[in-house]
Amino acid sequence: MAQNSSQHLEKAIRAISQLPGIGRKSALRIALFLLKNKHTTLPEILEGLQGIQLHIRHCKTCHNLSDGELCSICLDRSRQPSTICVVESERDVMAIEDTGQYHGRYHILGGIISPIDGVGPQDLHIQSLVDRIAQEEVKELIMAISPTIEGETTIFYLTKLFKPFDLRISVIARGVAFGGELEYADGLTLGRSIVARTNIELTENA
Amino acid sequence: MAQNSSQHLEKAIRAISQLPGIGRKSALRIALFLLKNKHTTLPEILEGLQGIQLHIRHCKTCHNLSDGELCSICLDRSRQPSTICVVESERDVMAIEDTGQYHGRYHILGGIISPIDGVGPQDLHIQSLVDRIAQEEVKELIMAISPTIEGETTIFYLTKLFKPFDLRISVIARGVAFGGELEYADGLTLGRSIVARTNIELTENA
Repeated sequence: MAQNSSQHLEKAIRAISQLPGIGRKSALRIALFLLKNKHTTLPEILEGLQGIQLHIRHCKTCHNLSDGELCSICLDRSRQPSTICVVESERDVMAIEDTGQYHGRYHILGGIISPIDGVGPQDLHIQSLVDRIAQEEVKELIMAISPTIEGETTIFYLTKLFKPFDLRISVIARGVAFGGELEYADGLTLGRSIVARTNIELTENA
Repeated sequence: MAQNSSQHLEKAIRAISQLPGIGRKSALRIALFLLKNKHTTLPEILEGLQGIQLHIRHCKTCHNLSDGELCSICLDRSRQPSTICVVESERDVMAIEDTGQYHGRYHILGGIISPIDGVGPQDLHIQSLVDRIAQEEVKELIMAISPTIEGETTIFYLTKLFKPFDLRISVIARGVAFGGELEYADGLTLGRSIVARTNIELTENA
């Protein structure tokens, strides 16, 4: 592309186009939008980004994103302390929170065991989970980890590690997605969903 | 969506999702990306945005984006001063510059005449174009304005205005786009492209 008439604009476009999902054309559009709204949207964005840079930290207990030492979920006394949902990343917490179906606490591993990428158990927040189980009154660990080879390896490792503890260890249900068509489900998912079939409970009126 | 565990993150996501083409999901993805790269990409983005906020101005002569009083195109002595390409916005300059086919100067109107939107000639950078033509040795004005109703109105107004001057006034060619299929061209474009047909020049060897 040709040189821009403003070096400052060029620099901004180059920086913005490093963002995920933003190419050079979108970056230009965003830069010109910010130039046009430099007294309204631009200061808000700058403040938001400075907030990310300076104020977001990780919860001391569960490693979730937090503004203080402990995150709002760990501080919330209405959340069941006896259940810990083990996830790979903060995004998984957000996805589960969005469902509104879970009322316990979380523990974020910060990754999954992946020998190919050189990620072993020592690279994950596993020791702090052991400490929590020793200190808190935890009754159930729910493994909410993607059903990939690395995910299954991580679940297997954690299940073995926590076997000596007096805990229920569960894994989120896998199967054909709601709204999905059977014929488009992959063979592995479909096969396992038959093996792991559940009884249909009829209500009294049915 | 459920409340976020970090208010600072929530604030950043809200600010980022105001950008054109960025929804809440993309904003979250960008915010987490910046959190992860807060010592590398984030400072670059902040610097870029501060550059937009503080340093980008408009060229005194052609109204293009510029870092100083005059833009790099007006300052470039290798560009023909006798031709001025009249465009609606800075983006049109970038698009034309990207083609590498034009070596003259520009004049950015900052909009087009649109009575419905309440934009009249007095709202555009037309007086400064009159001044340029009186002062500079301009021989040709090229109207590179979109062939819409408002665009045609603007071209008509400018052509009438500059008729008394000793100038060639031209308009960029309109017709069927290269690579486009005739059957999909709209009737108006196709009809005009027949009326405005050009002779085929054969080279000696053909």
